[in-house]
Amino acid sequence: MEGLFTANNVWMMICTALVFFMHTGFAFLEIGLTRQKNTINILFKNIFIITVGLLLYYIAGFNLMYPGFEEGAAGIFDFAGFGIAAPENGMTPEYADGGYTWWTDFLFQGMFAATAATIVSGAVAERIKIGPFMVFTVLYVGIIYPIAGSWKWGGGFLDQLGFYDFAGSTLVHSVGGWAALVAVWLLGARIGKFKNGKAQAIPGHSIPMATAGVLILWLGWFGFNGGSVLSADPELTSLTLVTTCLAAAAGGVVAAFVSFIKYKNLDLTMFLNGILGGLVGITAGADVMTPESAIIIGGIAGALIVFAVSFVDAIKLDDPVGAIAVHLVCGIWGTLAVGIFSTNPDHTFLAQLTGVACYAAICLVSSFLIFFVMKKTVGIRVSEKEELEGLDAHEHGMDAYPDFRLNEH
Amino acid sequence: MEGLFTANNVWMMICTALVFFMHTGFAFLEIGLTRQKNTINILFKNIFIITVGLLLYYIAGFNLMYPGFEEGAAGIFDFAGFGIAAPENGMTPEYADGGYTWWTDFLFQGMFAATAATIVSGAVAERIKIGPFMVFTVLYVGIIYPIAGSWKWGGGFLDQLGFYDFAGSTLVHSVGGWAALVAVWLLGARIGKFKNGKAQAIPGHSIPMATAGVLILWLGWFGFNGGSVLSADPELTSLTLVTTCLAAAAGGVVAAFVSFIKYKNLDLTMFLNGILGGLVGITAGADVMTPESAIIIGGIAGALIVFAVSFVDAIKLDDPVGAIAVHLVCGIWGTLAVGIFSTNPDHTFLAQLTGVACYAAICLVSSFLIFFVMKKTVGIRVSEKEELEGLDAHEHGMDAYPDFRLNEH
Amino acid sequence: MEGLFTANNVWMMICTALVFFMHTGFAFLEIGLTRQKNTINILFKNIFIITVGLLLYYIAGFNLMYPGFEEGAAGIFDFAGFGIAAPENGMTPEYADGGYTWWTDFLFQGMFAATAATIVSGAVAERIKIGPFMVFTVLYVGIIYPIAGSWKWGGGFLDQLGFYDFAGSTLVHSVGGWAALVAVWLLGARIGKFKNGKAQAIPGHSIPMATAGVLILWLGWFGFNGGSVLSADPELTSLTLVTTCLAAAAGGVVAAFVSFIKYKNLDLTMFLNGILGGLVGITAGADVMTPESAIIIGGIAGALIVFAVSFVDAIKLDDPVGAIAVHLVCGIWGTLAVGIFSTNPDHTFLAQLTGVACYAAICLVSSFLIFFVMKKTVGIRVSEKEELEGLDAHEHGMDAYPDFRLNEH
Repeated sequence: MEGLFTANNVWMMICTALVFFMHTGFAFLEIGLTRQKNTINILFKNIFIITVGLLLYYIAGFNLMYPGFEEGAAGIFDFAGFGIAAPENGMTPEYADGGYTWWTDFLFQGMFAATAATIVSGAVAERIKIGPFMVFTVLYVGIIYPIAGSWKWGGGFLDQLGFYDFAGSTLVHSVGGWAALVAVWLLGARIGKFKNGKAQAIPGHSIPMATAGVLILWLGWFGFNGGSVLSADPELTSLTLVTTCLAAAAGGVVAAFVSFIKYKNLDLTMFLNGILGGLVGITAGADVMTPESAIIIGGIAGALIVFAVSFVDAIKLDDPVGAIAVHLVCGIWGTLAVGIFSTNPDHTFLAQLTGVACYAAICLVSSFLIFFVMKKTVGIRVSEKEELEGLDAHEHGMDAYPDFRLNEH
Repeated sequence: MEGLFTANNVWMMICTALVFFMHTGFAFLEIGLTRQKNTINILFKNIFIITVGLLLYYIAGFNLMYPGFEEGAAGIFDFAGFGIAAPENGMTPEYADGGYTWWTDFLFQGMFAATAATIVSGAVAERIKIGPFMVFTVLYVGIIYPIAGSWKWGGGFLDQLGFYDFAGSTLVHSVGGWAALVAVWLLGARIGKFKNGKAQAIPGHSIPMATAGVLILWLGWFGFNGGSVLSADPELTSLTLVTTCLAAAAGGVVAAFVSFIKYKNLDLTMFLNGILGGLVGITAGADVMTPESAIIIGGIAGALIVFAVSFVDAIKLDDPVGAIAVHLVCGIWGTLAVGIFSTNPDHTFLAQLTGVACYAAICLVSSFLIFFVMKKTVGIRVSEKEELEGLDAHEHGMDAYPDFRLNEH
Repeated sequence: MEGLFTANNVWMMICTALVFFMHTGFAFLEIGLTRQKNTINILFKNIFIITVGLLLYYIAGFNLMYPGFEEGAAGIFDFAGFGIAAPENGMTPEYADGGYTWWTDFLFQGMFAATAATIVSGAVAERIKIGPFMVFTVLYVGIIYPIAGSWKWGGGFLDQLGFYDFAGSTLVHSVGGWAALVAVWLLGARIGKFKNGKAQAIPGHSIPMATAGVLILWLGWFGFNGGSVLSADPELTSLTLVTTCLAAAAGGVVAAFVSFIKYKNLDLTMFLNGILGGLVGITAGADVMTPESAIIIGGIAGALIVFAVSFVDAIKLDDPVGAIAVHLVCGIWGTLAVGIFSTNPDHTFLAQLTGVACYAAICLVSSFLIFFVMKKTVGIRVSEKEELEGLDAHEHGMDAYPDFRLNEH
């Protein structure tokens, strides 16, 4: 008994560490796919998100997300109080079926919380004012994310309705993706992104960093999905890792293949985003899929990436890292896929669709309100001069690579 | 019982994640030690290997490698069918002595599979055509590696003969090393590598990335060797980590020292390759060595590296990352060392030598056939123009570092 | 029982791997915050420290640090012999209360040992001769660190006195920090650091690498503090991770905020060093703090960083990476904070102060002796020409980034 409880908790702590490490992956992916003149700015945002996100989750987020809805409650909003005072049995196998301690619970969920804002960070890179982005982070990570999360993981109305989202295709990735969509639309494209109505490639400044970022994210997903079993149950955790990795592989291969057919080019960036798409896609149902279904889900996600990236371009939205394609499109796909492929007959397409719609509603409305109010008051976009010269010089007075000679663009 | 099974499976899942992470290490090592103009190409190959390798292992590799040879079978080839359908007891402690589940088994072994091709990737960097390399990867990782692996780990004839290879000095590293040797010979040296019969240094473009690669590989070896215990047995796993780390340390220090004596230079690259040599060397017997033997084996591997690198140069082979010295020479050395230093009296030098010879045979023949046929048909080497201008521009239409000003060479 | 023992040992092995990975973090932090012309040199030192440090710990360090002081001994110095021969019960749950095996014990502690010298490495970067630094490493890591460590963790006189240092705010970080202080003072500032008595910023050459370094260090701290529980006790390990992460977050946020108030600048480097300060600060008492205390301790550490960095500048010491502020100042603070905030009433401020003083004494004296003797004999500082042209060209004959065009400074 003590051995099992300890083994479970060990697994959950490792998964926590792996999810933490994903922030390194996100940071590297984002700076790798953008220009060197905005590197410090992006890193600053990422470091801000992980530190402030964790503190906000400590202050109120955890108890907003897991408020312990009462029997018969509407399951839309409740709050269990500030801080993270542990319940009496919080360190014993009585808590959470012996899957982990209360402290592990808090930290694992806290590491998830910051992810939503990180997704937005990539989409708005290279032109957003850092102050307003910080305000958005505080509101979105501190209040919107946990309330929305309570609807399913906190046992709220969507949970009671039969909606399923294992590790967050919707609760994490789409939540970030919807806000990214709104932000990108309100911000406008970077100078030079569209010329005569045609999208121009603005190449990222370090593809090795972007690649390292994706590999670190894949590694982190061992914890993101593996830990979402909420114990070290041998069958479920190992199945989850298998479906996760197969979906990632299939997503990458299909994206690279489709993009080769479409553009006659061996496009590494598309390969990488395909992997991420596969990972996001499998996340909603990684524990209820056969390996075969995982490959199909991941592969479709990979194909979606290629078309979604060009669609985002076509509607004149500028998403430097492909966050909308990866996190929103594949997040929706993965959530709906549970209704199609799940081995659990209780999962229905309708419930999944309902969930997607509810999250679309809260995220679109809340992120629009936040960004729109700021746009009309303090402004959310840096000046043209600052954008051209780089945010690093203006907002931070620092240079990411002072020893290297640089090209201007 | 359930606690032990869970703890075992947790360990094996973590080791799986660590072996996965080794691909980041390999990628960084390879790009770090080569020129920036081929960076995208190398990363593309590495991403291709890990994704396609995993899918191939799902399709057929796992069941080629562990076909369950029947009593009295020759133990050379068998196939348990496509896919990875789990046996009835595959998720219970009855499977694999309770060391892990069937899913974990598949994924851990799948992460190993791609490594062999990765080793070749480094040796052929900067001049191989990517199409033929992909074909080689599919054939070698998909078919040759698992069949060869079945001879020992699948319970085939070499296993019955008493050959021992704990975690793959031969089954993984030499298998990659032999193919690297063949490929490098058939490909020829990079333009400019040999002038007037003398080897010229072609410096790698980012030594920090190469260093990070080696440190990540060392970290990954905690899982590569630690997981090869196939359970979390406290004594064996912890002994394995101690011998692994001491051999790595000894390999690095001796390589740096020998190279300082020989060349009067504190050569970081040699230090790094010495660490890898020590790791490869200990891999065949990490669980049957005293710490003292581990230091000796690692130290000798470190010395071998220095001489092997200069020998490879002397016979006019061009191996940009030192893969032949590290993976082939130290792989052979480590396998033979089991016959000398093992604490298990059943291990004999003769059996080890037989194993080395059998793997030499299958690998040399198969990799020669694959590369030779392609050389005589589609060609395996890029054009001179493409090699000089870099494979990134020609095969991928991308630039790894577009914001930086570069030297030409 | 076997399950618990196995789960404990699994946790400790993972923590060992994470502490090992911290060396990658230190290496990246140090090269990121210094100039590209000294990159190879710094990496060489770091690789030297981890490999030689581990071998020294094998040879004598482990048995110097855990000599098994006899009843009634003074508890200042003892030595249990060369090598790491395991005691009879070293692989059974009888050893160390079943928290881990003897091999795990050695390796976990061995990974800690090298850290002290790594801290010094950053402070003396860009101007120290590599030979003398190697000699210092051998003496300090091989002899001073384990002897000093035996005073508390080996059960020596400070342990008997009630001094508490959970994971090494003093035993590891201050031990490195004191030596860094002495070394920086004896070495003098880098050319160009002080002009007309005013400190000049010498920007580091790759802020992304520095950022990655800090994130890897934070990840490693999961093992550094989490493993210092010396078992996988669910309550203590998970509490430790919570306090560790909250302190890191608070340290970063407060440092960024204070530095913004003081300098009107969103300083990423200060944010990063604040995180490290928070981590160092919580290390002495991570298992005996409430989450609330952890936030206070980390936040104060973050504020201290800003003032300590400018104080070090003001007294004309040149510490390129802020090692004195991070490891010495916050190490002292964290150790004393145990006397203020600990939930264990046995911990007293006086005992903590005594511990700090004793470590100050041994470290200041020993590191002064080592560096002073070398300064007066072989010299510890490179020539002006070498410093200006970079240590890489002179000591290693290598270039970290040969494909890139560089600025001179």
